[in-house]
Amino acid sequence: MGIASGNPRQLESFVCGEWVRGAREGLPLHDATTGEPVALIDSSGIDFAAALNYGRSRGGPALRAMTFHERAGMLRALGQALMELKEEFYALSYATGATRSDSWIDIEGGIGTLLSYASKGRRELPDTRVLIEGDVESLSRDNSFSGQHILTPLQGVAVHINAFNFPCWGMLEKIAPTLLAGMPAIVKPASQTAYLTELMVRRIIETGLLPDGALQLICGSVGDLLDHVTGQDAVTFTGSASTGRRLRSHPAVIANSVRFTMEADSLNSCILGQDAGPGTEEFDLFIKEVAREMTVKAGQKCTAIRRVMVPRAHCDAVVSALGKRLTTVSIGNPADEAVRMGPLASLEQREEVRARIHDLSPETRIVFGDLDRIEVISGDSEKGAFLNPVLLLCESPDNARAVHDVEIFGPVSTILPYDSPAEAVDLALRGKGSLVASVFTNDPVIAEETVLGLAPFHGRVLIGNRTSGKTSTGHGSPLPVLVHGGPGRAGGGEELGGMRSVKHYMQRSAVQGAPRLLSAVTGRWIEGAPARSDGVHPFRKSLAELRIGDQIVTGKRTVTLEDIEHFAHFTGDTFYAHMDEEAARANPFFDGRVAHGYLIVSFAAGLFVDPAPGPVLANYGVDNLRFLTPVNPGDVLQVRLTCKDINPRGSAEHGEVRWDCRVTNQHEAMVAQYDVLTMVAKSWP
Amino acid sequence: MGIASGNPRQLESFVCGEWVRGAREGLPLHDATTGEPVALIDSSGIDFAAALNYGRSRGGPALRAMTFHERAGMLRALGQALMELKEEFYALSYATGATRSDSWIDIEGGIGTLLSYASKGRRELPDTRVLIEGDVESLSRDNSFSGQHILTPLQGVAVHINAFNFPCWGMLEKIAPTLLAGMPAIVKPASQTAYLTELMVRRIIETGLLPDGALQLICGSVGDLLDHVTGQDAVTFTGSASTGRRLRSHPAVIANSVRFTMEADSLNSCILGQDAGPGTEEFDLFIKEVAREMTVKAGQKCTAIRRVMVPRAHCDAVVSALGKRLTTVSIGNPADEAVRMGPLASLEQREEVRARIHDLSPETRIVFGDLDRIEVISGDSEKGAFLNPVLLLCESPDNARAVHDVEIFGPVSTILPYDSPAEAVDLALRGKGSLVASVFTNDPVIAEETVLGLAPFHGRVLIGNRTSGKTSTGHGSPLPVLVHGGPGRAGGGEELGGMRSVKHYMQRSAVQGAPRLLSAVTGRWIEGAPARSDGVHPFRKSLAELRIGDQIVTGKRTVTLEDIEHFAHFTGDTFYAHMDEEAARANPFFDGRVAHGYLIVSFAAGLFVDPAPGPVLANYGVDNLRFLTPVNPGDVLQVRLTCKDINPRGSAEHGEVRWDCRVTNQHEAMVAQYDVLTMVAKSWP
Repeated sequence: MGIASGNPRQLESFVCGEWVRGAREGLPLHDATTGEPVALIDSSGIDFAAALNYGRSRGGPALRAMTFHERAGMLRALGQALMELKEEFYALSYATGATRSDSWIDIEGGIGTLLSYASKGRRELPDTRVLIEGDVESLSRDNSFSGQHILTPLQGVAVHINAFNFPCWGMLEKIAPTLLAGMPAIVKPASQTAYLTELMVRRIIETGLLPDGALQLICGSVGDLLDHVTGQDAVTFTGSASTGRRLRSHPAVIANSVRFTMEADSLNSCILGQDAGPGTEEFDLFIKEVAREMTVKAGQKCTAIRRVMVPRAHCDAVVSALGKRLTTVSIGNPADEAVRMGPLASLEQREEVRARIHDLSPETRIVFGDLDRIEVISGDSEKGAFLNPVLLLCESPDNARAVHDVEIFGPVSTILPYDSPAEAVDLALRGKGSLVASVFTNDPVIAEETVLGLAPFHGRVLIGNRTSGKTSTGHGSPLPVLVHGGPGRAGGGEELGGMRSVKHYMQRSAVQGAPRLLSAVTGRWIEGAPARSDGVHPFRKSLAELRIGDQIVTGKRTVTLEDIEHFAHFTGDTFYAHMDEEAARANPFFDGRVAHGYLIVSFAAGLFVDPAPGPVLANYGVDNLRFLTPVNPGDVLQVRLTCKDINPRGSAEHGEVRWDCRVTNQHEAMVAQYDVLTMVAKSWP
Repeated sequence: MGIASGNPRQLESFVCGEWVRGAREGLPLHDATTGEPVALIDSSGIDFAAALNYGRSRGGPALRAMTFHERAGMLRALGQALMELKEEFYALSYATGATRSDSWIDIEGGIGTLLSYASKGRRELPDTRVLIEGDVESLSRDNSFSGQHILTPLQGVAVHINAFNFPCWGMLEKIAPTLLAGMPAIVKPASQTAYLTELMVRRIIETGLLPDGALQLICGSVGDLLDHVTGQDAVTFTGSASTGRRLRSHPAVIANSVRFTMEADSLNSCILGQDAGPGTEEFDLFIKEVAREMTVKAGQKCTAIRRVMVPRAHCDAVVSALGKRLTTVSIGNPADEAVRMGPLASLEQREEVRARIHDLSPETRIVFGDLDRIEVISGDSEKGAFLNPVLLLCESPDNARAVHDVEIFGPVSTILPYDSPAEAVDLALRGKGSLVASVFTNDPVIAEETVLGLAPFHGRVLIGNRTSGKTSTGHGSPLPVLVHGGPGRAGGGEELGGMRSVKHYMQRSAVQGAPRLLSAVTGRWIEGAPARSDGVHPFRKSLAELRIGDQIVTGKRTVTLEDIEHFAHFTGDTFYAHMDEEAARANPFFDGRVAHGYLIVSFAAGLFVDPAPGPVLANYGVDNLRFLTPVNPGDVLQVRLTCKDINPRGSAEHGEVRWDCRVTNQHEAMVAQYDVLTMVAKSWP
């Protein structure tokens, strides 16, 4: 397969388990730098309804048969395999106009997202097929009827319609949560750079790591695919607002209430704090960030800074400093190591950018750059879609309309002077919802006011200051652990954000019933479900023998005043409520001297622990410990310990077992309640 | 105000702080039982854009100035005030056709939802204006750059377009989370029963409990209101799928990515388990439930059971038992205490139900009831919209289409025989997504298989069995603490579910920055933010003096083998890993005898506690305790305790303070990490 050499090859789609070409030769896709055709693209003749059905009937059941940990393991193996092959992707990526460091975001950033989901999935999700969410809701006083929310994978296909600027990351950041949730995907990359996505999908399929039908690819138009989506499918879209509107209002999407996530370009802002004038570290970091955002990927990022709010007094300084920095940005063939910024994705894209700058001309003037004179250090400025960075200034941003409305998808930003912090926020909000905004300040008051002002209109807000100067991931970078997406103009979608996006591909259902039956559904013991006390201490059972509901009710122990005093002196915790009857009585929560909370849990352990070596290897923690009734001298403690949740680790010889622990007194009042977390061996000789 | 007496009065809308009438006299609304006009409705001439702006500029800022606890307190006071006035609502509710017990769901169920949000809000939300979600995400190794998700109220208006069947509950279940989130609402009830909503809104406004602009009402058409919604507004809709589709695809909703929640009628199923044949308690409960769902509100509930899946062998028994039960349902004037089922909402509604039954006639036959012969014990069967319950049987449900597609909004259900549990689930899924399904079984295997099969297509699944026979809230009742809504045909929306729906009216934003500035935004100390050790033990500071970041680094304490042995014998926890060097070494987690986890936290308390009476009143719990490094004899412990979060209780003399607690050893390895929860006085003499 000589993908990047010789005559342009026709891209293939991967549907119903096969690589297929469109019926027609297809439209040529051009190298951004040379204008030479790289590939031909066409998807005509593909049976899109069959592709959806293939995903639903093959990929879905296979993925749903796996546990979260198995799916996470699959993602990890896939990420590692792709990382091995990265140089092949880098080589092809130059054709898109991306420099190596641009491609790093796309290729290694994308693979890193896959790996992040793999590791978070293993750490934060259980090794099960059903996700339990939140606490049990007791719906009756006698615990005969309770409720629990669960999440199960949607039984359709996630259709991901992606933008041209990140052909790898755009796919990987969406399939990672999709596959982890247990849902198959169909990916449709934007045509312009689909050849790189096609290469990566080819390599993914070749690994054999994904079940049949888990991932399909459409190179070219999706044809009538959306006509066939149902309420169990999901559609995501990244790209222009106009296409997004068309997809969102597609009759089948509307009629079937199809989950639709949109992430559209937006007029992201960067605010220079009033405290961050010339000479401060924040000023320098701000200049660096704006210049970087203007030139990385030649400004073709949904998250790039489009509007730059600057205290009016510092405007000249900003123009001058930004201009100086932008002058140093060498433009040319992205494969040339000396080049800092490559061409736009296509000549059409360059014409589009010029036209949009023209739209702003009544409200702005160019303070840096030249629309027509292009200087390159390599490459052909006629055939390549090169454009110098352009900095605009809008003197009266409050009266302006176009600067808050027209998005220019290229190396262009507009400076907007402001007079007060509130005005800076107001100007940002005029963008009607953005993916991200940033503020450069070292002042906590400005940070608080600005961030809280921006938050309702933004999916992400970044604060830049001297402390994080070196470690900040930057304004423009969505991170797998943080949400990505914004309200309003930005599309109203939400992606990534760790496990949040996994739930997007699952249905949340409230299940109600008697605890015994509810436990059978969730696999977790809940109060009111029957417990088993078969005479064998549950700590003597390995995971092979232990069942949820296994329970021990311990013997009793009286807490004496001597115990309390002894414990106080031994530990050094001589808090007055334990030591001084009168002072304790003056405390609003106590009627006299009380036992230490830590004494109660220590005695409780003494009551429930089984001392001899056995399958329970360690107590690694405690969750949600609450002291509910004070313990006074003479009170008699008893513990009820019930196996609540068993989570074997696929790769280890043990697993995590969570125990419901309730300590009561002689009046059967609950003294303390908590979860005890233990490591238990899978088998015990 | 003689609302229910005399000539029909023209309903008023409450917009921009005033009660206003439409410009025209309006359409008459009729009493369901007598056909007499109850009220006239019209909203022409109202400036809907002004209403939206009034909510945004008056209600929003006033609500956002309040904390969650203040808003929860407002909801509680409102719920209590409405409960006092309930008889007035009951009296007017008869006109809708509702019996007193039907109205109970609407009126007291609605007010109960308000009170549930008030109490949950106070218990589960902090007393702040910004909601922090999830853990801090450390984004740099040196803790100089971190991320945190926050939620802030949307700055627009929530427009709630409600159905006719629950004029009170429909409004209250939506404004409760809306107002708690800090967002104003505009309520538009369905015309048919708007007079009852109007009365309740009138009483709400009269209480003076809500800030100006927090709640507006539109009686009649919403005119061009939706043309003016933005990305900061939210629209919810409950009602027919066709209207929902129209609203969802409204150009302004699409263009501005307006959050749109839809809850549509669906073909909810009830499955009789194969184990639950005649003679079992589950069989009797099932018969009772189906009959109840058919007749409550004369079947005019979005959650009512439309399809009844019955093991083929038990079909005759079910038809007979259901018929017998339905025979006892007395129909007539809902104000008549002997009446169990009132009329439908209108004569048009009755004609609609008859037409839809006709749609099913090729696939079904009537096995109980008569479409035309109506028997009433009171009221006029000509003028009132009375209809007897009708039970249909579909012999070949697998080949049927209409029974899985046509919703009949009245006292009508269809029995579908099935042969295997999997087939019962398949038939339920043929409804393409429903609000709720139920299964009656006492068998945990059937419960698990059926519930997990149903879950991806349902927002709620109820298991009925003998244990919960008395306490079950029933198939048809959405609960404030559980999600309500379903995928696909059911509209794809999600309401209620406790605090989940509050977040629906807020924007989630990821905030990134240096911990010091991030802490300033969130009001919560995080690792990496500066700490203050000013020589005063932080336990000596009342809430008036204490600040987040106040820290104490304690002295050190060596753990000896004698300590471990002493603690073991004192508490009774003689687990071998503490007592037996050789056995401990054989444990995969330990290199020799280790200290008890509870000994570590007890010694830690001894190191950080300040013994004399002071503002710290009690340690009421511990969260997320993890033992990270084993402690061996000779290890030296030290504790760093930092004030993380301060949550004063509005009504009490104290508040909750959460402390970040880290115990390290002599190698600065983390031994244990947890949050210590304390009650601290607001002031201390």
